[in-house]
Amino acid sequence: MGKQLVLQTDFGRADGAVSAMYGVALSVNPALRIYDLTHEIPQYNIWEASYRLYQTVQYWPEDTVFVSVVDPGVGTDRLSVVAQTANGQYVVTPDNGTLTHLDESIGILSVREIDERVNRLPNSGESYTFHGRDVYVYTAARLAAGVISFEEVGPEIAVSDVIRLPHHEAEVLNDGISGNVDILDSRFGNLWTNIPRELLFAQGIHYGDQLEVTISNNYSIVYQSEIKLGESFARSRVGDPILFINSLDKLGIAINQGSFANAYHILSGDSWQVRIRKVVQ
Amino acid sequence: MGKQLVLQTDFGRADGAVSAMYGVALSVNPALRIYDLTHEIPQYNIWEASYRLYQTVQYWPEDTVFVSVVDPGVGTDRLSVVAQTANGQYVVTPDNGTLTHLDESIGILSVREIDERVNRLPNSGESYTFHGRDVYVYTAARLAAGVISFEEVGPEIAVSDVIRLPHHEAEVLNDGISGNVDILDSRFGNLWTNIPRELLFAQGIHYGDQLEVTISNNYSIVYQSEIKLGESFARSRVGDPILFINSLDKLGIAINQGSFANAYHILSGDSWQVRIRKVVQ
Amino acid sequence: MGKQLVLQTDFGRADGAVSAMYGVALSVNPALRIYDLTHEIPQYNIWEASYRLYQTVQYWPEDTVFVSVVDPGVGTDRLSVVAQTANGQYVVTPDNGTLTHLDESIGILSVREIDERVNRLPNSGESYTFHGRDVYVYTAARLAAGVISFEEVGPEIAVSDVIRLPHHEAEVLNDGISGNVDILDSRFGNLWTNIPRELLFAQGIHYGDQLEVTISNNYSIVYQSEIKLGESFARSRVGDPILFINSLDKLGIAINQGSFANAYHILSGDSWQVRIRKVVQ
Repeated sequence: MGKQLVLQTDFGRADGAVSAMYGVALSVNPALRIYDLTHEIPQYNIWEASYRLYQTVQYWPEDTVFVSVVDPGVGTDRLSVVAQTANGQYVVTPDNGTLTHLDESIGILSVREIDERVNRLPNSGESYTFHGRDVYVYTAARLAAGVISFEEVGPEIAVSDVIRLPHHEAEVLNDGISGNVDILDSRFGNLWTNIPRELLFAQGIHYGDQLEVTISNNYSIVYQSEIKLGESFARSRVGDPILFINSLDKLGIAINQGSFANAYHILSGDSWQVRIRKVVQ
Repeated sequence: MGKQLVLQTDFGRADGAVSAMYGVALSVNPALRIYDLTHEIPQYNIWEASYRLYQTVQYWPEDTVFVSVVDPGVGTDRLSVVAQTANGQYVVTPDNGTLTHLDESIGILSVREIDERVNRLPNSGESYTFHGRDVYVYTAARLAAGVISFEEVGPEIAVSDVIRLPHHEAEVLNDGISGNVDILDSRFGNLWTNIPRELLFAQGIHYGDQLEVTISNNYSIVYQSEIKLGESFARSRVGDPILFINSLDKLGIAINQGSFANAYHILSGDSWQVRIRKVVQ
Repeated sequence: MGKQLVLQTDFGRADGAVSAMYGVALSVNPALRIYDLTHEIPQYNIWEASYRLYQTVQYWPEDTVFVSVVDPGVGTDRLSVVAQTANGQYVVTPDNGTLTHLDESIGILSVREIDERVNRLPNSGESYTFHGRDVYVYTAARLAAGVISFEEVGPEIAVSDVIRLPHHEAEVLNDGISGNVDILDSRFGNLWTNIPRELLFAQGIHYGDQLEVTISNNYSIVYQSEIKLGESFARSRVGDPILFINSLDKLGIAINQGSFANAYHILSGDSWQVRIRKVVQ
C-alpha cells in the first residue's frame, strides 16, 4: 500500500487543473490514495498556504506526502524542493516560504532540490506554467509510491537556506500581551491570533477573566472593548463576543454564532495588531 | 476492508479543518475509504444538515458511517451521539436535530451517547472548539474500522429522547394541498416542497394537469399563477415555469433552465407556504 | 481492482446530489475508486464541460471511466451514450455536445446508446430529473467494475451521429493569426485562446517577440496593445501583461499576478475574437 498523498493549491476546483494532477499521480500508481488539503488558498498567498500546512499535517499519519503549490514565481529560478519534516512526513513545494510555519513548529530535518532532468512528467511539453502537474505532483507521487527514494529527489540543500516569510512573534508587554491576527477562520469570521495559550496562562490570565482587547490596523484602533476568556462557546450568549482557545491552542476572538471579522472589518496579517490586558476590578 | 466513512459539515473547504478530520480518520486506519457528503451546509443550519442526510444516505451501502457536524452548541452540554438507522447505517453527530428527517423516513433503531473518556482523540489538548476533529470523526473512524463496536460507543439512550426539529407536514385542504418550501436546490434555483407525489396523485392530480400555485411568506402572497405538472422538463419550453416530481419523489417548482427562487425572491423554511389547487376548466 | 471513475457535473457540492452519485457507484462495488473532475461547470454550459474533459482526460490512466452530466435536456429524447476514446478511456454522458473536444483531439472510436431497460438504477422511482444518479453513474460504475462490458451498454450508434458543438478554428491571416477566447482560467483571470503554439511558430513568431494583440467582442474592439510572448511568467514584472503558452500548448493572455479578464471585462466564446500580429520594428 502506498503512502497518502495530500494536495494543496490556489487553483480552485472549478476547472480541470486539480483533476489533471490527480490523473498524473494515479498514472504513476493507480493504488495511491490521494486527498485534498484545500484548493482555495487565496491566489498567490504563500503565508496562508504555510499556515494551512501547519494547521493540518500533525493530524496525518507519518510518511504522508504533501504537495503545496502556491507559486507566483512559476518559471523563475526559485527552487523546487522536497522537505522532510521531523515527524517523518514530506512536503513537495516551490521554495518560496511555504515551509515557514512547519519549520518553526514541527521542524524540518532535510531538504532536497528536485532534479527536473529526471523528476518531470515525460512529454510534458513546451509549457512552463503548470509545474504543479508536470513537476510537483509527479515527483510526490513517485516518492509516495516508492518509485524514487527521498535521496533520488535530487541534491540536498541546507535547511537554513530555505526561504522563510518574515513575521512577528507574540510578546509580553508591561501591562499585557501583544500579537497579530495571523489568519481568519473565514467561514465563521473568527480571528486566529499568534498568542499561544501558554503565554496567556504564564501571565496569570485564566478562563473567566475579563480582558481589554485592542485591535489596531497600522496603528489606528479598530476595536477596543472588554471580552471574557471563555472555556467554550457554551457559556456565552448567542451574539456576544468571546475570547477562546482555538483548535491550534492559540487565542481566538469571535462573536458567538456571528462574524467578528465582518462586524469590525478586520483582516489578517502583520499590520493587524492585537493587544490584551487584564482588567483590574 | 473497512466501511465507508462519509463526512458532512458547515466548515467549507477553504481552510484545513476538513483535512485535519481526514488525517485523524486515516491515522486510525489508513485503509479507511473516506468521502464527502458536503461541507457547504450554511453555518449553523441544522435543518439543512438533516435534510442532506435524508437526501443521500439511502443511496449508500449498508454499514456506511456518516459524520455530520453542524454544531452551534459546541462545548455546551448537548449530547454527542451515534445513531443506528433501520437500514444498518450509522450517523455520528451532536444531538441537536440532525436526525429529524432520518427518523421520519428511514427510522432510527438505537442511539448511544459517545463516552468521551474513551472516545476522544488522545492529546487533543485544551481546546473545546473542534469536536468534529477530536470526538466525532475519531469515534466514527474507530467504528468504521472495527476498532470499537457500536456498543463500545457509550451508554444507550432512548430513541424518543433524540432532539427533533419542529416542522409541518403537507396537508389536504378542501380545495387542494398545502405544504412548505422545505429547501432550495440552490444552484439551479428550484423549490423543493414537502408535498409527496402520492399525496398529489391521491387527490386526483395527474401529469399534464394545470394547477394554481400560490406561494406565500408569512401570509403575504409572493407568487400566484397557473403551472402545469410535467412528467419531465422536456416538454416545457426554456424559460417556462414547471411543476415536477423531484429526485426525492416530492413536488418541485422550477423555471426551465432559469431560477424560480431568484425570479421571485423565494427562500425556504416553515414561513414559506405553498398551496396548489387543480384548475377546473 | 476496478478502474477509476471520474465525475463531472454542473451540480456544485453544496447539496447531496454528487454524494448520492458516489453512493450509487459504491453500492455497485465498494472497491471502486471515485474522483472528481469538477462539479462547478457553469449551469447548462456544455461547451465548458467538453473543454474540461479535453483539459484532463489525457493525464488519466487508460481504462478510466468518466461521467459528465451537464444536461439541460434531461427527460427529452436526447440520447444517453458511452463513448470509447482512441486512448482506451470511456465517457458516459448525455449526447448533447460533451464529446466535441475529445472527438477533435484524442478521437472517438465507438459510441453506444445506454439501454435504460437494463442500465438504470433499480427502484429509482418516478422522477425523471436526476439521470446523473439513476442512469449515468450507475452505468459508469457497472462498466468500471466489470459488471457489464462496453458491448452490454446498449446498441452501437455511428460516431458521426454524435452531437458536436459548432465553433471556429484559429486561422492564418495576411498579417497575423485570428482565433477566439475559448475559455477563461477563471480563478486567475487568464484568457485561453484556441491558437496552437505550432501555428504561432509556423508563422515565424518566437519567444521574446513583441506582438500586437487585438481583442474584440462582436466586432467592437475591447483591447488593443502590444504584449511580449514570454517563455514563462518569470521574466515579466508583476502587473505586466504577458502572452504565454498555456498548459494545453495554446496561446494564453494574462496579467502577471493580476486578472486580464477582470481588467478588460472579457468573457469567452465565439463572439470573443483575438487577433495577433508581429510588430515590425
